[in-house]
Amino acid sequence: MSILIIFNNKDPEPWKKVLTSKLPNAIIELYPTVEDIAAVDFVVCWKPEKNILMQFPNIKVIQSVGASIDHVTNSQVIPKNSKITRIVDTKLSRDMWEFLLTIVLTQLKNTKTYLQQQEQRIWNQKEYKSIDNTTITILGLGTIGGYVAEKFAALGFIVKGWSNSRKEISGVESFNRRESFDSCLSQSDFLINLLPLTDETRDIIDRNALNKLANDAFFINVGRGEHLIETDLIELLDTDKLAGAFLDVFRKEPLPKEHPFWQHSKIQITPHVASLTNVESAANQIAENYKRFLNHQELLNLVSLNKGY
Amino acid sequence: MSILIIFNNKDPEPWKKVLTSKLPNAIIELYPTVEDIAAVDFVVCWKPEKNILMQFPNIKVIQSVGASIDHVTNSQVIPKNSKITRIVDTKLSRDMWEFLLTIVLTQLKNTKTYLQQQEQRIWNQKEYKSIDNTTITILGLGTIGGYVAEKFAALGFIVKGWSNSRKEISGVESFNRRESFDSCLSQSDFLINLLPLTDETRDIIDRNALNKLANDAFFINVGRGEHLIETDLIELLDTDKLAGAFLDVFRKEPLPKEHPFWQHSKIQITPHVASLTNVESAANQIAENYKRFLNHQELLNLVSLNKGY
Repeated sequence: MSILIIFNNKDPEPWKKVLTSKLPNAIIELYPTVEDIAAVDFVVCWKPEKNILMQFPNIKVIQSVGASIDHVTNSQVIPKNSKITRIVDTKLSRDMWEFLLTIVLTQLKNTKTYLQQQEQRIWNQKEYKSIDNTTITILGLGTIGGYVAEKFAALGFIVKGWSNSRKEISGVESFNRRESFDSCLSQSDFLINLLPLTDETRDIIDRNALNKLANDAFFINVGRGEHLIETDLIELLDTDKLAGAFLDVFRKEPLPKEHPFWQHSKIQITPHVASLTNVESAANQIAENYKRFLNHQELLNLVSLNKGY
Repeated sequence: MSILIIFNNKDPEPWKKVLTSKLPNAIIELYPTVEDIAAVDFVVCWKPEKNILMQFPNIKVIQSVGASIDHVTNSQVIPKNSKITRIVDTKLSRDMWEFLLTIVLTQLKNTKTYLQQQEQRIWNQKEYKSIDNTTITILGLGTIGGYVAEKFAALGFIVKGWSNSRKEISGVESFNRRESFDSCLSQSDFLINLLPLTDETRDIIDRNALNKLANDAFFINVGRGEHLIETDLIELLDTDKLAGAFLDVFRKEPLPKEHPFWQHSKIQITPHVASLTNVESAANQIAENYKRFLNHQELLNLVSLNKGY
């Protein structure tokens, strides 16, 4: 029995250290250094390379170190009889909410414009917008999306939300089913994408969807790059339908240097930082799951492979 | 009997138009066009030029069109038997709160850094800070300051406040008296100045005050330029005691082109836009006060000249 950490684009050392302190009797290895391939039954993953798990014949648990599992299901043939678990951390939800609130407010209060004016020593007052007449549509009302929607509503924003199954969230007008998608987008000032990536949601944010928003609306992507048709976004920015876009996730990360998003005057970019997993709190969940696995107990934050989240 | 509008650096036309619609029988004039100097008994002011009111022997009410009156008391000999009133608008408080929340969040979430990275196509994640371990000190707990302090606390910030008289505000640790000033500043991450400008508060934010804050603290001035010793601020930014400053008010406005604040890499500037008076709602208060004045009733939002606010 052993735990194997398989990370891409993320430093595994702090994770190994914290997990070792919480599970002093467990064998914890870092890919590719594996003593006994057949002993690996619990893998801890972040963006594993394509089909890498096939090398290990006895995997029983695949633990994602993020809130999502698409980085595993889209890259691996999931071994029969194995289970997939993810991290659910209330801090992830709070961090996402603080990040999104920052983006929305900077847009309402002209932050970027004033930074540009300052460079040219320009003193020029601009009208600002206010929370109570701003409408936000949130796509995806899962653990994080539901939390964010409720918080925006509590602060006084007008909030609409869309999700696969119908949700009851205080202060949020909720939509579900594909045919209500357009109504949920209609005349919104901000569109925030927090959907999980599935076959149904891939490419969902296209020209048609963005055109439903209010004129001068603003698009924020903190879901996945694959939700967005990039050329459609650029078209609607360039024709002045949209006031701007804030993108934290991309089809390819890091975003390639030659990508047109970098220099587009209406696009703001952050390097996938909306909510960063906290090693300490995630490691507690992983250690707890490993103990439950050893004791044949039900695992925490098990993901339904049919639904994909 | 007549109303005279005396504005500097602000367009009086929309004010005259709205006031005329609310007071169709009143004589409303725009300085310097005045038919009968002796008839002027109600003046509506914004930053009047020095001693300009002395030309009018029968002034009974001086109505400021802002939340503050220092622009009147610091420039005029206040006529005997006259009263000063100001605008109290809950929207002014809400706007100030939204503006300040935007500044604090952009600092916690590295907004300016990411804008700079984007220009150079740099993909580099930075650690962010969170609301629940951020301490904010608010100087001035009047109508606006008290509202802002309560809102920051309700959102999860740790909030301390300082004011002339002791205040009870939910979630806010309140200080008053000069000797508790240092305790209120001690180890705070953000200092927000919302004090009224009086002889006691002029120059109050100096090297000593700023040094009491936590290392890497951030200073926000939305009070008055005269509260701040400018050279002390620059010194503490340049020696890396402070992470930065956000200034919306200045000793001279518009901020002169040659002022060193414009190009300082740790200073952000906005052109006195934190909360802009709403003409319609302010004109309602002014019209109501004029009617009360004509009917010898008590005026709204009367200012105590002893306290200065």
